[in-house]
Amino acid sequence: MIIHKEDIQQMEQRYRATFINALAGYRQAVLIGTQSISGITNLAIFNSLIHIGANPALYAFVCRPDTVRRDTLKNIMNTQYYTLNYVPERIIEKAHQTAAKYDANISEFDAVGLTPVYKEYFKAPFVLESPITIGMKLVQKIDITINNTVLIIGTIETIDIPDNIIGSDGFIALEKETIAASVGLDAYYTTDCITRLSYAKTDTWPVTIR
Amino acid sequence: MIIHKEDIQQMEQRYRATFINALAGYRQAVLIGTQSISGITNLAIFNSLIHIGANPALYAFVCRPDTVRRDTLKNIMNTQYYTLNYVPERIIEKAHQTAAKYDANISEFDAVGLTPVYKEYFKAPFVLESPITIGMKLVQKIDITINNTVLIIGTIETIDIPDNIIGSDGFIALEKETIAASVGLDAYYTTDCITRLSYAKTDTWPVTIR
Repeated sequence: MIIHKEDIQQMEQRYRATFINALAGYRQAVLIGTQSISGITNLAIFNSLIHIGANPALYAFVCRPDTVRRDTLKNIMNTQYYTLNYVPERIIEKAHQTAAKYDANISEFDAVGLTPVYKEYFKAPFVLESPITIGMKLVQKIDITINNTVLIIGTIETIDIPDNIIGSDGFIALEKETIAASVGLDAYYTTDCITRLSYAKTDTWPVTIR
Repeated sequence: MIIHKEDIQQMEQRYRATFINALAGYRQAVLIGTQSISGITNLAIFNSLIHIGANPALYAFVCRPDTVRRDTLKNIMNTQYYTLNYVPERIIEKAHQTAAKYDANISEFDAVGLTPVYKEYFKAPFVLESPITIGMKLVQKIDITINNTVLIIGTIETIDIPDNIIGSDGFIALEKETIAASVGLDAYYTTDCITRLSYAKTDTWPVTIR
């Protein structure tokens, strides 16, 4: 079926949110861990992780200031530090539950039953149950004025990852730790690698490298 | 293993690119179709599709001006129109091959063997072999000065999608069309839905809705 802009505008609000979110496809769900100035830990699931560059290593995510995630944004702006914690299959329900609108004085770690971990070299809490965790430091906040969202760009400060999922060329087999892919606001997927292809060149067709 | 910022900086360049790209996790690979002012079609694979908002329906992608994708950026800035074409399992190799550095006067459609389709209501070429296609119009280009990348934000103008993969609540079952998830620069995945969970509330635990 063909859907035009006017049809999208006329969709019922919740239907449209589900449809447009799901249409954006597969993405990486991460739990973002922060701490408030008064020391309260916060944990919230985001599905908008973006690779911006490898050197320097920069990731970004999109944040809506007017949602429950405002605590995450506020804490990052105040402390500059945050963690990205990947979601394996076994903690999907707990991870999803962090999206509930808990009061600012309640830690989502406690509310959903995940364990905050502090490491001597980093100023924000990690998730013990997450097999891959990244410590990030804020470098830039970009306002997307067209719909009042913000893009938070940070540098990778530290990575904790199992040795045995990193290949000799640096590739990471996320599926070995059952890291879930997400679609839309509420769907979680297992994955299975079809192929890795060689660098594309004009004079040769790509060949399978895995 | 723990990897610190200094370790990342000291990684061999290609290893680092592979590692940091793969670590960013699952994402949606799309073929972006454009047309130059002189009428040459261009097709390039991107794996940085981002959901910015549902009302208005806005998607973005990250573009490096200094790579082969410059033709895509140039065409979008000149014409304002572009298409997003999802990659099913059966065209992964052709889609990947669009990343090769073909001369500006060669159409990647011809080079890799995909078929451009023009529709009367839209000014950029779609991919015939793609089961889900979206027509986009540029609304904003944001320069990310820290590493000389740009964020291209567009509105969804038109969507062509099979009726039978859209659920009654608007959710889209991408796996029914074998739409591939991607990791890093070169890996493609099939997916399998584990669960969809209900809207998270503080007084109830999420329940499976699919």
